Amino acid sequence: MVAMSEEISIERAGFVERAIVRHRAGQSTDAIDHVAEEIPVALVFNGISHVVMMATPRDLEAFAYGFALTEGVVASAGAIFDCEVFLRPDSAEVSLSIAQEDFVRLKDRRRQLTGRTGCGVCGIDSIEMLDLQPQALPPSLIQVDLPAALARASSSLREHQALMQATGGVHAAAWCTPDGAIVHVFEDVGRHNGLDKLIGHLALHDVDMRRGFVFLSSRGSYELARKAARMQIPLLATISAPSSLAISIATQARMKLVGFCRQDAFVDYTPGITL
Amino acid sequence: MVAMSEEISIERAGFVERAIVRHRAGQSTDAIDHVAEEIPVALVFNGISHVVMMATPRDLEAFAYGFALTEGVVASAGAIFDCEVFLRPDSAEVSLSIAQEDFVRLKDRRRQLTGRTGCGVCGIDSIEMLDLQPQALPPSLIQVDLPAALARASSSLREHQALMQATGGVHAAAWCTPDGAIVHVFEDVGRHNGLDKLIGHLALHDVDMRRGFVFLSSRGSYELARKAARMQIPLLATISAPSSLAISIATQARMKLVGFCRQDAFVDYTPGITL
Repeated sequence: MVAMSEEISIERAGFVERAIVRHRAGQSTDAIDHVAEEIPVALVFNGISHVVMMATPRDLEAFAYGFALTEGVVASAGAIFDCEVFLRPDSAEVSLSIAQEDFVRLKDRRRQLTGRTGCGVCGIDSIEMLDLQPQALPPSLIQVDLPAALARASSSLREHQALMQATGGVHAAAWCTPDGAIVHVFEDVGRHNGLDKLIGHLALHDVDMRRGFVFLSSRGSYELARKAARMQIPLLATISAPSSLAISIATQARMKLVGFCRQDAFVDYTPGITL
Repeated sequence: MVAMSEEISIERAGFVERAIVRHRAGQSTDAIDHVAEEIPVALVFNGISHVVMMATPRDLEAFAYGFALTEGVVASAGAIFDCEVFLRPDSAEVSLSIAQEDFVRLKDRRRQLTGRTGCGVCGIDSIEMLDLQPQALPPSLIQVDLPAALARASSSLREHQALMQATGGVHAAAWCTPDGAIVHVFEDVGRHNGLDKLIGHLALHDVDMRRGFVFLSSRGSYELARKAARMQIPLLATISAPSSLAISIATQARMKLVGFCRQDAFVDYTPGITL
C-alpha cells in the first residue's frame, strides 16, 4: 500500500466509473459506466466552515466565487483576497479569505440563525427572513433579438455539455453574448451550482454580467432567478419550465425570464419586460 | 375590495395561471399558461420555526410528516401528535407537535449549528457532520422481477402526473407494489419534496415501506438515496441518472438503486444487491 497525500489538489474529470448491469429488451450486459461525481464541498470563509454543498468536483474556485457573490457573502469579487481548493478523494474544501467587513456581516448573520436539518432554503428558518423582494435591475444595456439569440443558444448548447454526454446526469449553465453565441459552459449535478460556477468564472474574468445572458439546461426555480437577479443579469433563459416564484422574482427584478427554449420556440414569462 | 382572511387553509391546485407570450416559428401568441406553484413553506416544531422549504402547496401535511421522518426529526410518525397546515396566498406554515424527547434532540442539534446561507446540505456546516454512513437495510421482505416491475411502473407513471401535464415543471414520486403497480403519486417543484410527501403519506397510512418500491421521475442524487434508505425502502428507481454519491449511499445501505428506467430498459447501479 502506498502512502498517499491526503490532499489532492488536481482538477478532476467530474465523473467516475462504476460497474453496472445494463438491461434492455430482456437482455442484460455487464458494463462500466460513467457516473456524474457528487461530493460534499465545504466552503470555508476566514477559517470558519460555513456551508456544505453537494457538488461536482470541477471548477471549484469559480464555484466558491459564484456562491459567495450570489448569496451575498461578499459584495464584490474584489472582497475575496485568496481562494484555495483542497480536493480529496471523497470531499473537497474551498478556503476563502474575504474582507473583514464582509466577514463581520457574515458572522452577524450566522449569529441570528439557529441551524436546521434537511434541504431547505439555507440560512433561513422563518419566512420573514426570506429575500423575496429583489431590487429592480437598471435599464438594459443590451438589445437581444430573442427568437434568433435563443435559437442559436439552443442549437449549440448540447455540444458544450461534455459531462452530460458522458453521464446523462448533470445540468449546464451557459453564458451567451446578446446574439446567442455560447461563450462559457459549466456543468454540475446541482443546477444552482452550475450557475454559481458560471457566475464565479465571469466575476473572476471581469466580465460585465449586464452585457449577456444566461442559458440553463434546467427548469427555472426560485433560487436560480434570485441568483441571476442579484448579479444584474438581464435575461435568464431555461430549457424547461419556470416556477411561479421564479416568475415573480424576475418580474419584480425586471429581469427577462423565458422558458421551454427550443431552436424554433420559447415561452416569454415576463411579457412586460423588454431588452 | 373584499376583506379576506389571512389564513386560507383549503388545498390548492399546485399551479397558477400566468399571462405569457408563446413564440413559435416566428409567430407570437398571447396566452394564459399554467405554471407550477412554488411558495416558501415553514416547518414549525413545537412552536419553533425550524426550516423553510420552497415547495408546491399541495399535500403539505404529508410533506411535513415525510420531512420529519426522512430528516430524522422524529423517530416514528407516532411521535407527531398534531399537524396543522396554514396556507396563505404566498406562503404556508405547517405546525407540528412532536414528542418531547424528539424535540429535545432537535433543540440540541440546532444548538450545535451556527447557521448558513445559500442552498447547501442544511443543518450541516462541516463535512464531519454529514451522515454518509447509512445503516444497512435488513434482508429484503419482497421479491421483485425487476424488468417486469420497472416496465409496468414506467409505462403508467405519466398518466399519474396531473401537475406535470398541466405545467411541465414538476417532479413525481410514486409508490409501487413489488409487481410495479403504481399506488400513490405525489408531485412537487422539488424532487426531494415529492419524495417527502410520498413517504409522509405512507407513514400516515401505516404502509410498510419495506414492502414496495419508490419510482422517481428525476435523477437520483444523494439526498433522495439517503431519505429512502432511512425509511428502509428496498428499491429506489429513477427515470434519469444517479450521482456517484447516491450509488455509494445505496451500496452501503444495501438498497437497490436503478436508473434510466424505460419500458424496456434500465440500468442497475447496485449489481451486488438482490431483492
